[in-house]
This record gives sequence, C-alpha cells and structure tokens, in this order.
Amino acid sequence: MNRFLDRHLPPGRERPSTLHEAMRYSTLAGGKRIRPTLCIAAAEAVGGSVDEVMHSAGALEILHTYTLIHDDLPCMDDDDLRRGMPTCHVKFGEDNAVLAGDALLTLAFEWIAETPAPSPYLPTQLVLELAQAAGNRGVIAGQVEDLAGEGSLLEKDDLQFIHIHKTAMLIRGAVRIGCIEAGGKPAELDALTRYGADIGLAFQIADDVLNATSDETTLGKPVGSDDLRGKNTYVRIHGIPKANEMANALVENAIKELDALSGDPDPLVEIARFIIARDT
Amino acid sequence: MNRFLDRHLPPGRERPSTLHEAMRYSTLAGGKRIRPTLCIAAAEAVGGSVDEVMHSAGALEILHTYTLIHDDLPCMDDDDLRRGMPTCHVKFGEDNAVLAGDALLTLAFEWIAETPAPSPYLPTQLVLELAQAAGNRGVIAGQVEDLAGEGSLLEKDDLQFIHIHKTAMLIRGAVRIGCIEAGGKPAELDALTRYGADIGLAFQIADDVLNATSDETTLGKPVGSDDLRGKNTYVRIHGIPKANEMANALVENAIKELDALSGDPDPLVEIARFIIARDT
Repeated sequence: MNRFLDRHLPPGRERPSTLHEAMRYSTLAGGKRIRPTLCIAAAEAVGGSVDEVMHSAGALEILHTYTLIHDDLPCMDDDDLRRGMPTCHVKFGEDNAVLAGDALLTLAFEWIAETPAPSPYLPTQLVLELAQAAGNRGVIAGQVEDLAGEGSLLEKDDLQFIHIHKTAMLIRGAVRIGCIEAGGKPAELDALTRYGADIGLAFQIADDVLNATSDETTLGKPVGSDDLRGKNTYVRIHGIPKANEMANALVENAIKELDALSGDPDPLVEIARFIIARDT
Repeated sequence: MNRFLDRHLPPGRERPSTLHEAMRYSTLAGGKRIRPTLCIAAAEAVGGSVDEVMHSAGALEILHTYTLIHDDLPCMDDDDLRRGMPTCHVKFGEDNAVLAGDALLTLAFEWIAETPAPSPYLPTQLVLELAQAAGNRGVIAGQVEDLAGEGSLLEKDDLQFIHIHKTAMLIRGAVRIGCIEAGGKPAELDALTRYGADIGLAFQIADDVLNATSDETTLGKPVGSDDLRGKNTYVRIHGIPKANEMANALVENAIKELDALSGDPDPLVEIARFIIARDT
C-alpha cells in the first residue's frame, strides 16, 4: 500500500510543489493503513484478489488522510502533532492544509473511478459508496456533531451517533467497497456490512480509551486531549472498564458474521482483534 | 437550476441541521449559475437536452459553491461578504464552513455519479472530468499559487497559470461534461474545450476588472480587495484597457469555435458575451 501511494500520488516537484509536498507528507507519514487493509481483506474474504482493489484501497487511504488534515486544523481539533510529526497546517500553513485536504478528497474520487473493473457499472457504484460513507450522511455528519457537542455532556445515543458516523461509516465503507469490487454475493455484502459497522464502532471506542490511557511517545499525538477539550468519549460517558467491554463485545459479534463468507476470513478476524489490542 | 438545487440538497431540518443549513445557505444564496448554464447550453449545442444533464449541472454548481466557501475562509481570502450576504464561516463558524465545503465537494461526486446515463461507462467518465477539473491539477493548483503569489509581483505566465487553473479549468470542465453527456462528437468536444478555456480565462480577467472598478452594492462583495491584499490580477499586471482588450479577444476566439457544432450554439454565444459585459 505504501508503495502504491508513493507511486500514484503526484510527484512533489510537480507544480504547485507546496500542494503536492503537503499531500505526500500527510499521506506518507505512516499510519496503520487500516482502511485499505480492510478493503483488501474483504475482497479476499469473498474470493477476490488484492490486485482488483488496489485503486479503491488507495482511494480509501487518501480520503482518510484528508479527514485527518481537516480535523487537525486550528478551527477544528487544533492538533499540532499527528503520527509523531507536525500536523499538515503546522508544516505547510493553514491555507495549504485546507487545500491539500481538498485535493486528496478529490483525488480519492479520481482513483476509485479509475479502478480496473470487470463491469462498466462498477466504478460508479464504488464512487457512490465512497461518497455516501464520507459525506454529509457519513463521516462529516459525525464530525459536525462531535464539534457541536464539545463542552457539554451528551446522551449515550448522541455519542453513538457521532462515533458511528465519524469513524464506523468509512470502515464499513472500506469492507463494502472491497466486497462489491470482488463480486461478493448479497448475503456476503450484508454480513460484511455488519462486520464493518461493528469493528468501526469498536475502533473509535478503542481510540477513546487510548487517548485516555496511552502516552504521547507511543501514540504519536497528545494524550488526554479529548478530556481537556471537553470531548464526549466512551471513556467519559461509560468509564474505561465498560468501554473496553463494549469494544470486546462488538468485535466478537463482528467475527461471528464472517461465517457467511466464501473466501478466507482469517485476515478479517485478525484485523478485528488488532483493532482493540493496538497501542497506537 | 435553483429548483433542482433546493429539491436535491439535504433538508435543513435533517441531522446535523447546522451542516445542512450551511450547505443550503451558501448554495441557495444566489449567484449567476454560470457553470450549470454552460453545461446545459453545451449539451444543447451538440443536440442534447437539459434533462439529460441536470444532475451534472447541479454537481458543477455545488462544487463551485464549495470552492467559494473555502476561498472565503480566514486562512485564505478572509472575506466576510459574498453575494451581498455574510460568508459561510461568518454565519456558521469556521469549523462548520470547512465541513460544509467538504460535504458539498463530496456530494458533487455523488450527484454526477447518479446521472441518468444512456451508457454505463458515462458516469465514470464524468466523475473523472469533474475530479480533474477541480483537483490538484485544476482549480486547487490555481488557488495554491494565487495564495503563494500574494504580496509579490508575478510574471505574466505565472499569472496566466493561476487564472487558467483557478477559474478556467472548471468552466472548461462544465462545457466538456455537458458535451460528453449529450453524446457530442470528438470534433465538437475539441471545439467546446477550446471555447471553455477561452471564456474561462476571459471570465477571470473580467472578475479582476470588476474587483477594481465596481462598487460593493452592485458586486455584493468588497471592491478593491485584490489590490489591498497584493493579489496578482490582470489589472495589476496589464492595466484595465489591456485587460479588457484581452478578455474581448478571448471571447471572439471562443465564439468562432462554435461553428463546428451540430446543435444550437446561440446560448453559448450569449453566455460568452455576457461573461465580459456583466456588472456582478
């Protein structure tokens, strides 16, 4: 995935080089590559191959990178550190960070539309999946409510709305896109959709726990920042033991869904377990 | 077009309503609807109809609206007034303005992918046209160089790079999308591409002249702001008479391209003339 991103992102020397360097800096800064990995694993779990879905997997990663760049902006979470390095706006200026994010979002649609698809209808379907996961009824809805809720104590349902949209929608989208592109059957798509929604919510709960319990060196970003900012998190509303318990239950539910698949489910089992066991 | 936008944008009462109200506020605030009109006129100029291209035309307008919202941000042009009304970040806050822009950009790809197309290959092609016109080799390239050039005096070629990318690429994209979707022949697409590039550049030159010569009530935004900010404009580099002359020549060239078309070219002729004769 890292090789694919390096090769397909515009070269840093191409004009305007500040823009292209900013796009490359934030995308190639590391990161767990969870969404592309899920897309590939979902394709393999319904009998497809990694080659079929590389463009879509890359699109998911650069779209995710755009959300991080914009989330870190001073007018949003105002974070200076990401993956142990200065955030995009600290390094390239706020204006270039907004535009680098915009450019990565736009390029994600270009990449997914360019996927080498066996059916002419497929790229359109993938574009729609990506737009719906990322848009005003997906990731962005969660981000808006998350910011609006800062400093006030939300109800459990409202917190769940935020976490489902902010995080789970794109993770669910990643497995759906891998499954659709690899020609998964409707029953497989349904099972993977439930798997994605469950591990997506578990992922954000684990993030909340890490933000409260890890240290800055391990995590690569400030610890305890959610609390300082008055963010609504599973830790704040439910406490750490209950949050861990909920994440575990979601992962176990997700793994049960994988019985319905025709291909190799093992990587999806491993990713689900990794999501709550990770330390970064 | 206004009816289409009103019907197809998410309702303001839908959660999160701040986001949806911001998307509607900026899109429905008025505006000349130049890009959708060009898309529709290009379709008709190659024998197509308005119904075929409404989704694409709407996508072009909300994509254009996203560029305005982000351009107006404090970290970019820092404008408080747009179309005679407070800009999106003044009305809804900077965080919601960034996210409303992101959501409109994302929704533009959803709309264009949902176009009722006669061929299954068509929506993908339109997604690519839109992404390439708007992305890091299109509009965003121009915006990055425009901001980078503020306060220093650019060469003529660099100014042209900015204007072509910042403005002409999406106008060119609008006529290309209308032509492609209506099944225009390759020679028609070539002619319309040159037409779009020419009137797109003329449009930005006319904008530069208006910013220097109009008044705030007529224009709906501050006048002379380019100059105050040390922006590189055709007025600054070439002077007003020469800028007007260049815009006129581009429009006359553009109109000559229309001889190649099989449908009704008259609306495209009128739009080309309007672009340099407008007072707002």
